[in-house]
Amino acid sequence: MKRLITQARMLTMKEGETRTLEDAWLLIDGERIAQVGTGNPRIDADEVISMQGKLILPGWINTHGHAAMTLLRGFADDLPLQVWLEEKVWPMEARFAPRQIRWGTSLAVVEMIRGGTTCFTDMYDHMDEVAAVVEESGIRASLCRGVIGLGSQEERKAKRQEAVRFAREWKGGAEGRISVMIAPHAPYTCPPEYIEELVADSAELGVPIHIHMSETEAEVEQNQRDYHARPVDHLLRLGVFDRPCLVAHAVHLTSEEIEILAEKDVKVSHNPGSNLKLGSGIAPIPEMLNAGIRPSLGTDGAASNNNLDLMEEVHLAALIHKGARRDPEAVPAEIALRMGTSYGAEALFLEDQIGSLEVGKQADLISIDLKGAHLQPVHDPVSHLVYAASREDVQDVFVAGRPLMRNRELLTLDEEKIRFETNRAFAEIAQ
Amino acid sequence: MKRLITQARMLTMKEGETRTLEDAWLLIDGERIAQVGTGNPRIDADEVISMQGKLILPGWINTHGHAAMTLLRGFADDLPLQVWLEEKVWPMEARFAPRQIRWGTSLAVVEMIRGGTTCFTDMYDHMDEVAAVVEESGIRASLCRGVIGLGSQEERKAKRQEAVRFAREWKGGAEGRISVMIAPHAPYTCPPEYIEELVADSAELGVPIHIHMSETEAEVEQNQRDYHARPVDHLLRLGVFDRPCLVAHAVHLTSEEIEILAEKDVKVSHNPGSNLKLGSGIAPIPEMLNAGIRPSLGTDGAASNNNLDLMEEVHLAALIHKGARRDPEAVPAEIALRMGTSYGAEALFLEDQIGSLEVGKQADLISIDLKGAHLQPVHDPVSHLVYAASREDVQDVFVAGRPLMRNRELLTLDEEKIRFETNRAFAEIAQ
Repeated sequence: MKRLITQARMLTMKEGETRTLEDAWLLIDGERIAQVGTGNPRIDADEVISMQGKLILPGWINTHGHAAMTLLRGFADDLPLQVWLEEKVWPMEARFAPRQIRWGTSLAVVEMIRGGTTCFTDMYDHMDEVAAVVEESGIRASLCRGVIGLGSQEERKAKRQEAVRFAREWKGGAEGRISVMIAPHAPYTCPPEYIEELVADSAELGVPIHIHMSETEAEVEQNQRDYHARPVDHLLRLGVFDRPCLVAHAVHLTSEEIEILAEKDVKVSHNPGSNLKLGSGIAPIPEMLNAGIRPSLGTDGAASNNNLDLMEEVHLAALIHKGARRDPEAVPAEIALRMGTSYGAEALFLEDQIGSLEVGKQADLISIDLKGAHLQPVHDPVSHLVYAASREDVQDVFVAGRPLMRNRELLTLDEEKIRFETNRAFAEIAQ
Repeated sequence: MKRLITQARMLTMKEGETRTLEDAWLLIDGERIAQVGTGNPRIDADEVISMQGKLILPGWINTHGHAAMTLLRGFADDLPLQVWLEEKVWPMEARFAPRQIRWGTSLAVVEMIRGGTTCFTDMYDHMDEVAAVVEESGIRASLCRGVIGLGSQEERKAKRQEAVRFAREWKGGAEGRISVMIAPHAPYTCPPEYIEELVADSAELGVPIHIHMSETEAEVEQNQRDYHARPVDHLLRLGVFDRPCLVAHAVHLTSEEIEILAEKDVKVSHNPGSNLKLGSGIAPIPEMLNAGIRPSLGTDGAASNNNLDLMEEVHLAALIHKGARRDPEAVPAEIALRMGTSYGAEALFLEDQIGSLEVGKQADLISIDLKGAHLQPVHDPVSHLVYAASREDVQDVFVAGRPLMRNRELLTLDEEKIRFETNRAFAEIAQ
């Protein structure tokens, strides 16, 4: 099937292409972008979609999260991290069965599609349920079973086998929309030899590693006490960075650590909303950019954010570093936009497939309504996207050429049912 | 006319009342709140409005801004402050005629009503135009002619007369919805004796003072060079704090300055979005709260924000101090909510009239739809309002008992016409 999008303003996010194309068109053939141009396309298509008054761009890419934690959104806030985790979050998570994952993830995917996210990352448990939601919804995802290595030898082995089994089974699943990673949870929750085993698994499977790193100061200090090294050195020695690797958070880094990450081409998922809310700190993004790292953006789970709005992360990424550094030139709008799109694709090692509107790539794209009062006058669509717009300005969402939302109507998921089932799934474990 | 709102969840924001009332009702008689209760109201009314599935609360109060600067939204970003001001903003503002103020302000008011703001503050020029928009739209406002004292003796005198004339003419205007202030622009733009004259005017008129203060480090340093005092001491000596006074920004304060502000009961408008975007810094809000100051929130102008979304300021106020201090308990959700409502009323010296849902107060209230996927499950409406919701969740807006928006439809302003005229008003000065 050929779909022709016409009369749009377009941000391709192609490397080096920063201007907005006016009166642009884009031809989708099946799941891919077949042609891009401006003016009158003079092309036949099965469906012609006018995007007059709208801006189209690649969909947002969320590079870190725990989707089913939507069940715990607003369940506990404004507490010291350890109290929040140990007394509130972990006891509830221990009650999560496949049903909770199914509906919590479905809710997350509804929210993400509504906000223009076309690809998300999930590190959690009962991942077959997550993969099923990805299949059903039509969204794209990079999935991994998050592995904590604190239990017995048997538990560790079982979790590792589960992670490997999941990765093998779902790699390239959902007609290619699912990619997979191997995910040791964090240096402070996995013994070194366990991490090394998971590194070997990732090499054997030919998939990247995803890991939490240096989210809090306390965890960096613990790493130094336990292993006489800061997390970057520790993971470097364990061979983690010899694999394609995506680290989440990276809030507390020395300049030497930033150099190592840049040199080893380690990808970073910056999670400003979560880092602010949990009081973790503000990641040194300007320094990372100076060192040549191209950070991506993640929402983290809804229990620590408390939404899954990647567009808000773009906004926060553009704002908070300017304020914290007293530098209005820190993280300019265009860079923040790349963090949410093309740098996100790189972070998931999917830059050949997604992240920009280019011929041959997957047709993952969204449209933004530019008519809102809060977007007038339209001097510069890039500025408006980053500083003034919000998720509800997203009108249409396509993934792999398939419409998942048109004019804010969801086409693949039953939002009403998911809202009902999510509340029920929470009630079941709330006793 | 009596309007009865029923079946709502309700946050009254009454002092000391923090819990959400369930199955609550509220009777509006004319412009005021006549009764509040829970359960079955058993009351007759001309109109009964079911708010099932919605949360009602006092409307947002925006305590600092320059409404007509919407015309310059996204016109220039990501520049050093002086370049942005001197090369971009000021040359354009110099071309603003009454038409530009009229349409820029109308656009701002559309955006603010849509986002649930029921009272805004405006410090600008051609203020009769602003007052006319307030009259027409039905919104509430605290207005002041911003006075810069850098010109000739005649210019200064004319501006001061204009500010006084405006205040006298519009105090209590628009059926009481307009209150006024006297606004020396800032210590660095007004000579000391000029500020003293304006203080005398404010006393004679019996209205508060509104002034920018300590927004940037550079301006504090300049104050020290020019007057051998930091801004707080300087304004204290000039008698500014002997009047009811609202200072905007207050980013760069010593602990002694915070003590003085607390002791003199000076009101503060915290503008986190603008302060971040311009790279001004992060105001010491936790210290102010500790000292007993109750900061309010402002958007500042749309050229430095770039929206007029007070709900986003609530969100930022709750997030950024936690991150900057690495303290998840800094500025808890309930305090952020008060900053946007009851503390806002205090900042404008209108706490007897607005800021909470109490019998006898003006019926300025908004409803929030709690059905969105991003607000499930509804564990705690306060948490969701502050951390997860966004402006488009606002459904209904009432000011002085009059509906200005119902189910997201504006009732008093023609948005389409305003969008058209705003773009035209900008085009006229863009040559």
